Amino acid sequence: MAKLKVAVLGASGYTGAELIRLLLNHNEVEISALVANSNAGQNIADIYNHFVHFDLPQLKRVDEVDFAQIDVAFCCLPHTTSQEIIAQIVDSKANPELKIIDLSADFRLDDAENYQKWYGNEHKAKNIQPSAVYGLSEINKAKIKDSSLIACPGCYPTSALLPLLPLLEYNLIKKDNIIIDSKSGISGAGRASKVANLFAEVNESCKAYGIGTHRHIGEIEQELSKVADGDIEIDFTPHLLPINRGIISTIYVDINDKFTINDLKNCLNTRYQDEYFVTISDNVQISDVKATNFCHISVNKARSGNKAVIVSVIDNLCKGASGQAVQNMNIIFGFDERLGLTNAPLFP
Amino acid sequence: MAKLKVAVLGASGYTGAELIRLLLNHNEVEISALVANSNAGQNIADIYNHFVHFDLPQLKRVDEVDFAQIDVAFCCLPHTTSQEIIAQIVDSKANPELKIIDLSADFRLDDAENYQKWYGNEHKAKNIQPSAVYGLSEINKAKIKDSSLIACPGCYPTSALLPLLPLLEYNLIKKDNIIIDSKSGISGAGRASKVANLFAEVNESCKAYGIGTHRHIGEIEQELSKVADGDIEIDFTPHLLPINRGIISTIYVDINDKFTINDLKNCLNTRYQDEYFVTISDNVQISDVKATNFCHISVNKARSGNKAVIVSVIDNLCKGASGQAVQNMNIIFGFDERLGLTNAPLFP
Amino acid sequence: MAKLKVAVLGASGYTGAELIRLLLNHNEVEISALVANSNAGQNIADIYNHFVHFDLPQLKRVDEVDFAQIDVAFCCLPHTTSQEIIAQIVDSKANPELKIIDLSADFRLDDAENYQKWYGNEHKAKNIQPSAVYGLSEINKAKIKDSSLIACPGCYPTSALLPLLPLLEYNLIKKDNIIIDSKSGISGAGRASKVANLFAEVNESCKAYGIGTHRHIGEIEQELSKVADGDIEIDFTPHLLPINRGIISTIYVDINDKFTINDLKNCLNTRYQDEYFVTISDNVQISDVKATNFCHISVNKARSGNKAVIVSVIDNLCKGASGQAVQNMNIIFGFDERLGLTNAPLFP
Amino acid sequence: MAKLKVAVLGASGYTGAELIRLLLNHNEVEISALVANSNAGQNIADIYNHFVHFDLPQLKRVDEVDFAQIDVAFCCLPHTTSQEIIAQIVDSKANPELKIIDLSADFRLDDAENYQKWYGNEHKAKNIQPSAVYGLSEINKAKIKDSSLIACPGCYPTSALLPLLPLLEYNLIKKDNIIIDSKSGISGAGRASKVANLFAEVNESCKAYGIGTHRHIGEIEQELSKVADGDIEIDFTPHLLPINRGIISTIYVDINDKFTINDLKNCLNTRYQDEYFVTISDNVQISDVKATNFCHISVNKARSGNKAVIVSVIDNLCKGASGQAVQNMNIIFGFDERLGLTNAPLFP
Repeated sequence: MAKLKVAVLGASGYTGAELIRLLLNHNEVEISALVANSNAGQNIADIYNHFVHFDLPQLKRVDEVDFAQIDVAFCCLPHTTSQEIIAQIVDSKANPELKIIDLSADFRLDDAENYQKWYGNEHKAKNIQPSAVYGLSEINKAKIKDSSLIACPGCYPTSALLPLLPLLEYNLIKKDNIIIDSKSGISGAGRASKVANLFAEVNESCKAYGIGTHRHIGEIEQELSKVADGDIEIDFTPHLLPINRGIISTIYVDINDKFTINDLKNCLNTRYQDEYFVTISDNVQISDVKATNFCHISVNKARSGNKAVIVSVIDNLCKGASGQAVQNMNIIFGFDERLGLTNAPLFP
Repeated sequence: MAKLKVAVLGASGYTGAELIRLLLNHNEVEISALVANSNAGQNIADIYNHFVHFDLPQLKRVDEVDFAQIDVAFCCLPHTTSQEIIAQIVDSKANPELKIIDLSADFRLDDAENYQKWYGNEHKAKNIQPSAVYGLSEINKAKIKDSSLIACPGCYPTSALLPLLPLLEYNLIKKDNIIIDSKSGISGAGRASKVANLFAEVNESCKAYGIGTHRHIGEIEQELSKVADGDIEIDFTPHLLPINRGIISTIYVDINDKFTINDLKNCLNTRYQDEYFVTISDNVQISDVKATNFCHISVNKARSGNKAVIVSVIDNLCKGASGQAVQNMNIIFGFDERLGLTNAPLFP
Repeated sequence: MAKLKVAVLGASGYTGAELIRLLLNHNEVEISALVANSNAGQNIADIYNHFVHFDLPQLKRVDEVDFAQIDVAFCCLPHTTSQEIIAQIVDSKANPELKIIDLSADFRLDDAENYQKWYGNEHKAKNIQPSAVYGLSEINKAKIKDSSLIACPGCYPTSALLPLLPLLEYNLIKKDNIIIDSKSGISGAGRASKVANLFAEVNESCKAYGIGTHRHIGEIEQELSKVADGDIEIDFTPHLLPINRGIISTIYVDINDKFTINDLKNCLNTRYQDEYFVTISDNVQISDVKATNFCHISVNKARSGNKAVIVSVIDNLCKGASGQAVQNMNIIFGFDERLGLTNAPLFP
Repeated sequence: MAKLKVAVLGASGYTGAELIRLLLNHNEVEISALVANSNAGQNIADIYNHFVHFDLPQLKRVDEVDFAQIDVAFCCLPHTTSQEIIAQIVDSKANPELKIIDLSADFRLDDAENYQKWYGNEHKAKNIQPSAVYGLSEINKAKIKDSSLIACPGCYPTSALLPLLPLLEYNLIKKDNIIIDSKSGISGAGRASKVANLFAEVNESCKAYGIGTHRHIGEIEQELSKVADGDIEIDFTPHLLPINRGIISTIYVDINDKFTINDLKNCLNTRYQDEYFVTISDNVQISDVKATNFCHISVNKARSGNKAVIVSVIDNLCKGASGQAVQNMNIIFGFDERLGLTNAPLFP
């Protein structure tokens, strides 16, 4: 079989770079186009010197891409931009077979009103929004396989939904009082030059931000509500860690009467026993999953009442973004889901 | 007035070093003895080269100290050792006027049984344990002033109790469902050579530990229960941050009916308006309090229900250990509480 | 005596913030004006939240300062801007007694042509340039005392000149083949928002930059040439370290015939025996001088030929910038040189 | 062809772990035995939790390995131990075809006396020492191919020899006055629990160590002397960086008369044009080679005289240890040299 022809839109950001890293290690794809409008004409190695060894196409503008020649387009664009570009591509009908895997937030929320509530602007691609599938690979595998537009989940939501969804679906935990305290490496903030992201500002510190208002709340609640009997509201507090990669989410839940910590562990073990990338473990730490698509989850007895403390770790750029995007591509095209994603973690 | 004569027992650990740093900057004290049994005969600068400029007494064994000549003894010893040494000092009756400020966990728990429950061994100084005052400076100032044995709070408890105690005392929040998610720099683990604390293990990672079982739970619950009407059980999860100094505690509480976020803010503002070291702020981050005795607290509206997300930051070695110890000394001897503790934070 | 009235021009950068930190700890000064043109009207705590506890004047524009009421103006402005502002202040004759301590590069080079060679633009304050004294405190103390315009040395030059000047002056080392390999924390790059200074770019890496062309070469060579018999050319390679503060300079020199490593050590020990801030030591590391005005120097036998490897460490923001500026103020006004600069290093 | 059966001796250290990471990604090998005497009976995932997903043999003692069933033994043992174990394996004659790739220092020095000079003890495997080949892959490829005992170079020597050897061989630079100023991440110090390697000691600091005496000097001088006309003595200063991985070596050399910087660049470009892992580049930084077997080298004009400043970067655990070991295995067995080593760098 000929290799898949892949385009990466938004190649100059960190998720774009991570995607290139992963695709270079994937036997069944060929990187056919790299798009970065403001750097068009440059080589990716001019922007990311670490790609100097790799034979990669020159950066171009999106209007220079012949999508008829592309099998998969990964969109690593800023939100709002992503919906505009994707709408153009779809509306152009250049390639009805094209699979689009979007890493932005633009198609994660099913409902246009809900989108507007969280993102502040009217959605510009309402016609295609309903066709998007929320690309949490282990949960929506069947739908992902049949979709042409995947909305890859946010990094924080991936870390929170993987443990929470099965527990809610099987009614092991209560719908209210779900508290998600997450800590993320700085790469989640992208490569934008802001004072707040300078080394000297982030180093030797930690802070919470977007308390109760962070946009990822929208997709977490949407997905949790789907498996629960009714709407769910969560408390979510993201924090910034002085590390490059990785998220650790510490999640506090009330266990339903009659159930125990072991029931929770068994539920997750059973749910994920055939899922290569999700593992229930006694000890989890960010360094165990660095540079990989793994999610490690521990389930711990809380001290007070009948509660559990669940800790999950992922690499925010990989399972939380580009790795899961590749996993979704593998699912769509019937490859082994692990293709390009089997490297061991980098430690130390 | 002659300067106070101070002894530091356990000078070779990080809290010992921090105490020396602070005392060197204190006009009313003289460091008369530095004790480090296993390094006796050495200079402190042999262990901590950064003290090379300072005229400090040679390290000695504790039995070489003439406590009759000492006004204040700071104990930065490991727990269990601390209670033994302090018992010896007290029992020797060498100096009935001696003030002892203990930075270990040994005298924090009022009840010997409770101590044994959390620390595993029978308390070896039960006769003096009842005389100890829990040295959370802003809360127990009057008792501290009249005491000869201060048990300085743990670093995590300091960060959690300062915001929680007034809210519970004034009945603004519920007694159950208090969740404390804390993140600490590595210096809290001390200077012991363990693989888990090596640079390459801690760097670029984050993990939770002691979930639901960490010993600091004992003192947090003890102190919260004192101001509440009945026993309190909390959920507490400490995490390890790849930074040298600092704690950030993110605390989730249920607000009592009729009260609001603003009531919580007002309560804390009122309670701490005359306290120099505690400030209610909109934005808090560890770097704002580095190398200081400050505690910054933000009170934020949670998304779900009538909840608050309280974030507090301290420097674990300073307000969380040696700084609060100095503050307590200032209180006991009637100095301005800020003496030796007024340096601006170190940033960047 | 009334306290000195001090103005800090360029208060919003890192050296401005460090200066405020140090001045707040200085008994003989009062911070009368903080200037930051683009933030005029704000509080410094709006820009640096860690100053929230301190009673500091509102930020203003430079034209709002009444220099007749100021005793000392510290200029923490970008180069080129600094010479313009200082020229305006001097030319206005508002205060002939005003002492100006400039932390920029603008007055470090004695010769206007040399300035233009290294900085690319014609000097805009040629009339006052000749009156400036190079403010390397330990070396130029007498001149500093009598000057009204101090050009504080660069951070790298401070770390290199302190060990090299006495050795050259006493003819212990050769004039050629002086190699200075320096490594600096990122705060030296200032608070400008550049991609290259983002946490994720600097962390877990190290690079050399400005090899053979860095502008600090100009002042190092100028000062070395003054004590040597003829012009000196050096090789200087700065590197960027993933730390906030600190410089370590590793310097390779050829020892003159008949002299030995011990002669070099003796020379430096003798030269600096009465200088509080400069210490010759066997082991030096950045962490030993963090947050202080100290310079530690070790002199080591090289393996090949009759060479020495000299290692010096300073805190780039303190002895390499704002600390030395305060030291110079102390010298000018006849204070104890150490005033405001005696705090112990921060470790860990 | 059946896969090569590989044993890793000393699997519990960082180089052992890195080797496992690389071998897991190598199509032509099977990890048949993992040896860690003091952890025998445990799983590698008990020591390195990040290997939990991989099907790896249980740790055993070296005497439990049937070397007749092994094709390649990688020795990641401490020096001295390595020579003893390798001597036992060779003397046992269990497998005359066995290829041994040693990552310790034990067989790097050709001469037993020279070994004793640098390492302090008499060599315990003098009979096999002469058969060892210094495994600097790009330089000794032909010899490596025919050898049964490879002594992989040290991390610092790899970074220094790759640029220096061709320049000396072609007589472009002088033999004296070669200065190598190297900076390494902490993983080079191994996983031993020492206070000096604790996070809080290494973080936010940098120091030089072993100035003029570091053991890697022996092998650097040995290899340089081989291509030069006569003995070479170098000056080498290693420094410790607060990062996990990576070495940057800044090398100062005197260019021979008649030659220029461009001649040096051309020499290296020509020498390495067919070498995948060595690249001459304008800008080099550690982050560009992280987690890879690449060496990037820049050649820069110095300021003084006819000198060059050469900067080289490698990943100390990969090209500086386990990666080069795998490369050597590929050479010996006639595989494509890049097998298992083609993953893109990890950035950020």
